This record gives sequence, C-alpha cells and structure tokens, in this order.
Amino acid sequence: MQTRAFAVQSATTVFGPHTIERRAPGPKDVAIEVLYCGVCHSDLHTARGEWAGTQYPCVPGHEIIGKVMAVGKEVSRFKPGQTVGVGCMVDSCRSCASCHDGLEQYCDGPVSFTSTYNGPVGGGPNTFGGYSAAITVDEHFVLSIRHGENDLAGAAPLLCAGITTWSPLRHWGAGPGKKVGIVGIGGLGHMGVKLSHALGAHTVAFTTSPSKVDEAKALGADEVVISKDEAQMKRHQGSFDMILDTVAASHDLDAFTALLKRDGTLVLVGGPPTPHPSPAVHPLVFKRRAIAGSLIGGIPETQEMLDFCAKHGITSDIEMIKMQDIEAAYARMLKSDVKYRFVIDMGSLK
Amino acid sequence: MQTRAFAVQSATTVFGPHTIERRAPGPKDVAIEVLYCGVCHSDLHTARGEWAGTQYPCVPGHEIIGKVMAVGKEVSRFKPGQTVGVGCMVDSCRSCASCHDGLEQYCDGPVSFTSTYNGPVGGGPNTFGGYSAAITVDEHFVLSIRHGENDLAGAAPLLCAGITTWSPLRHWGAGPGKKVGIVGIGGLGHMGVKLSHALGAHTVAFTTSPSKVDEAKALGADEVVISKDEAQMKRHQGSFDMILDTVAASHDLDAFTALLKRDGTLVLVGGPPTPHPSPAVHPLVFKRRAIAGSLIGGIPETQEMLDFCAKHGITSDIEMIKMQDIEAAYARMLKSDVKYRFVIDMGSLK
Repeated sequence: MQTRAFAVQSATTVFGPHTIERRAPGPKDVAIEVLYCGVCHSDLHTARGEWAGTQYPCVPGHEIIGKVMAVGKEVSRFKPGQTVGVGCMVDSCRSCASCHDGLEQYCDGPVSFTSTYNGPVGGGPNTFGGYSAAITVDEHFVLSIRHGENDLAGAAPLLCAGITTWSPLRHWGAGPGKKVGIVGIGGLGHMGVKLSHALGAHTVAFTTSPSKVDEAKALGADEVVISKDEAQMKRHQGSFDMILDTVAASHDLDAFTALLKRDGTLVLVGGPPTPHPSPAVHPLVFKRRAIAGSLIGGIPETQEMLDFCAKHGITSDIEMIKMQDIEAAYARMLKSDVKYRFVIDMGSLK
Repeated sequence: MQTRAFAVQSATTVFGPHTIERRAPGPKDVAIEVLYCGVCHSDLHTARGEWAGTQYPCVPGHEIIGKVMAVGKEVSRFKPGQTVGVGCMVDSCRSCASCHDGLEQYCDGPVSFTSTYNGPVGGGPNTFGGYSAAITVDEHFVLSIRHGENDLAGAAPLLCAGITTWSPLRHWGAGPGKKVGIVGIGGLGHMGVKLSHALGAHTVAFTTSPSKVDEAKALGADEVVISKDEAQMKRHQGSFDMILDTVAASHDLDAFTALLKRDGTLVLVGGPPTPHPSPAVHPLVFKRRAIAGSLIGGIPETQEMLDFCAKHGITSDIEMIKMQDIEAAYARMLKSDVKYRFVIDMGSLK
C-alpha cells in the first residue's frame, strides 16, 4: 500500500514529501489511518542523526492517534472505525521475561523491541513512524483510545510523554501520602505533573524559570520550587519519596538526591548528550537513596494510563501544526518554545 | 572510670598510649571490657584526618567484642560475664522514622546517630572507640554474641564489615534463585562473599587480581570474574539481580551496571576519595537499573546477622595483632596486605 509520508533523506536535509510502502494487514495486523501525531524530541534527534544509527529515509513519529481502516482475520480486539493509538513500539520478541511481564520496552530478545520508526533497537530493517497517512501494526502493540473526539489530538502525546512519566510514577509508587518531585516542565515534565497530581501524590514541580511557577501550578503542582534557589531547595531536604527527572541536558544530580528521603529514588528518563557531573556517593550511602533510569512503558501499563487519562479527562497541552510546518516546529522546540507538545494534524498531508 | 586506650593526638602523629574517661554505667548502660577490636579502613581515614571533622585525641575502633563487667539497674537483656558486641553506633535520636524502623544508621535526628568514635555524625562531643580497655554503652546499642570462645576474635569484624554487607544483601533480597555479585575481595568483600553464599544466592566475586581467584572460591564464590577481562565480563551481561560494590577507590561503574538484569541494583558501600567517572544514564534507562548506596546496618538487623553467623559458623578471616603494632598494620592495609581483617587482641593493652 503506497502511503504518503514526510521524511528526511539524510541528517542534513529538511523534511519533504515521501512515499512509503505499508504492508497489507496480515492475520494479526491492524491497518490504521493516522489522524494525529505528536512531535517528540526523539524525532528531532533521530532525524538529524544526533544519536548513532539513524536509517534514512527517516519518517519519525511515535505518538500516533488514528482510526482503524481494516483488521486481519485473527484480530479480536479491534474493528474498523475504532479510535486507536500506537506508541514507541511496534514489535518485540514476545518470549523473554520482560515481554511476559508486559514490559516490552525492556525486551531481552536479540534486538530488543522494534521502534515505531528506525527499526529494532538492536539493529534491523527500517520502520516508518507516524509522520505518514497510515500505518499497519500488530494488534498486540495497538492501544484502545477512549478519549472523546475533541481530545484526540491532545491524547497523542500520551503515547510517549504520558507513558514515559506514568510508568516510573506507578513503579515507584506515586499516590496518596507520597511526595513526588518532577524536574523540568516541558513535554515530559508537564505530563508528569498532571499524572502525579491525578494519582493523588503531593506533587512538587522543579523549574529553573520563575516564569513557569504559575503554569506549573495550573498543571496540578501543589508546590513549585525554583531549583536554582538554594534556600528553597534546602527547605525540601530529605523529604521526597521519589523525584522524576525529565531534563535531558547535563545537570547536577546531587541537588536532587539531597531532597530524597531514606530509600527515595531519583528516576532519570532523559539521556543527556554529555554526561551529568558524577553524582556524589555520600548522599546515596547515608540515606540508602538510589538513582535509577526508566524507559517509556509496557503495553499493558500504556493501556492502563490511557484509560486513567480518559476517565480523568487528562490530555497533553498541545499546539497543533501542519505536517508542512515541521521544520519551524523543530526550530521552536530547540528554543523550548512550545507549550508543551506540538501535534501534527495529519489531515494536512492530503 | 580511668581507662587505658591508644590514641592519635593529631592527623600527623602516631598512635600511643592515652588515658580516657569512661562513664560509670547509668541505669540503661552496659560497661564492657573490650577483648577484641577489628581494624576498619575508617579507623585509618579518621585517625589521619582524611575525612573532614576528626576530633582529637582520636581513639578509633568500631568492631568490638567484649565481656560485660557491670550493668545499670534498668538493663534487662545483659548480665555480667556475658559476651557482647558493639558496632559503629552507640546512640541515635530514638524517635525518628528510621529509628522506629530499627534503621538507626539512617537516623533523621538533628545530629543523626552517634558514632562509636568521633561523636555524632552531625557534630557534637567526641566519643572514643574500641582501641581501649573498656567501653560503656546504652544497652540498645549492645549486641549479643553467640559465637564460641575460639571464634570471638573473628566475630569482631562482623560488627562493621559483616553488617555493611549483610544489610544491603538482605534489603535487596539476596537468597536462593538470585545471582549476586560482590566487587572487591577485601575486608568488606570477603564478608559479602561469605554471607551471600550462606544466604543461598549464586555468588560471583569480581576482582582485578587473578591471584585472588582461588581464595574467592574458598570463601564461597560460585564463580570468580576478573573484572579487567572484557570477555569474561561480557558473558555475565544482563544477568545479576544485584551487585554489591565494596571498592572505595574511584572506578568505572558502567562495567557493572551493564551486568545487571532489568530492575537490578548496583549497591555502593564504599565512598571514593575522588568521584567515580560519571555513570552512563543509558544503561540505567534501558533496563530500569539503579545505582544505590547503603550504610552499615541497623541494630535489629545486626543482631539478626550475628545470630545467622553464629548458627552457620561464619566469622571473618583475620590476622591478630597487638595494640602496639597498629601503625605497622595501617601501613600494610594501605598496600591491601591483609587477609582480610586485622583484629587487635586488647589483652595487649594491659
């Protein structure tokens, strides 16, 4: 099936129209018309070859909301016309312990999971993401979307920004009686604040920008701390059960480990291009604190998060763009000039 | 009570005889004749002022085995003549959450716990440790020793080296069906190997010295890996539930995080004088691994460890010295020339 898309042909070329081949649905496949696709920083890093191993042509996009066009014979969970989502993964080994545990993002198979674009993590044939008119995906990796029509564009970023914050919040027990910090109020962080608040945790947003205080409170933060203000930081020393750090730039982690209670965890979901300054061991040892990482989330927990968000009326705060405006959007993302996620209206591709 | 001890008077003087004052036992105190005292690297760091805040005169020693001489009126658990132990702590606030949880080493009180020597962690009057003929300690911080007479000297290092490895092994679930790594085969590491093995975990010792392979197996390691050998390291990739890193020198942590399973933890119990190279975030994110710290252990878990060791015939491998030979012992420790712990026969003080 010849499918319209937008692609870059190399790390140094701009996005332009491109035709890709989508497979006709096999017995377990769902063919999906893409309605909306969120724009993640990973799209930019991959398109521009800033991480090793970009395969070109590159069609990014892993925050996909669409409508089912057709389903294979053995598909039981989806029907044509249904609203569905596709996130960061379109396949995995399905047989390792992580896959059995519904944590496909940690797949221990030979090439780990297959990314929605750029192929398997461990190398293999290229895959093309949501900057396209349609996509065919095995039903195991298709999510049900229960948001109303008007919320569909805002639901798109839940498929990456939402689950990337939901999974660690749930894994480390964010909820009533817990004090949770969210560092960085961007695409990921603003979802972290919304979800932590909705889960019932006392939620503290950390930002370097005094201008973001009111916005962070509007998102659901019970308190906002200017992380450059040592006196403000000191007042929270030793008080957090977990801190979710969404900042992808190199920064001082010690300022945040000091704020954790005994047995508290600083969870990193951003990978900095240059290493963080080496975290001090002393604050870890003296309160049995930990620094951990977390990667997106598994399919069952993504469905759980989507259902939770539909029930609680949670979406991402977005700015809608046309596919043709993607370069301008990337330029603004590099200046952090977006509140908080661009979403492409794929109708613009027609 | 005037008490014979060995002290340093400054960071640059050698140990010599010194008389200290011990309090007569108050209602809850136990007065203890010190029989044996293990020699920990912390003794050396503190005596020589290598960590901030040494108070002089400094009488180190926090691996104490002794005999009860007298008890206060309200002491219920100990009687004169009984064999007892004192570890790294002689007091704490007794009212914070950590103290209530029996984790006095993480005391959240204003000055945290009171170290057996050098006073409270957060500052306060000096205390004098086990390089002395006697010590008076509140019964809360006195441990029962159930080892036989011949094992008492070897039991002394359990009070620090033993509990420092036991506590994280228990906290992170070392036991049957688990694969546990122990990095560094010194005072702490050799206890880590013995305890992990006795707890039923598949125990892998990591060493940089091919000469230590046989020793490590004799201590109970199921496998020994030369950590400088990349091929050997690679065979264990992604396979460990936890790795206990006892090395206090700055070293590459990434080599060990790569060996952890999903959700595995690298636990640091040594504080390097210069920072470790900054650990890569990617290996943490891609398997939800963590780097954590752990500090000695609480009083209830110290008693649990001592009882476990008495039952399983576990002691430290030691070399007995006289108090007068402490400078020579420190010189050998700096060359790692000890298997695996010096223990002072305090009879030599008379």
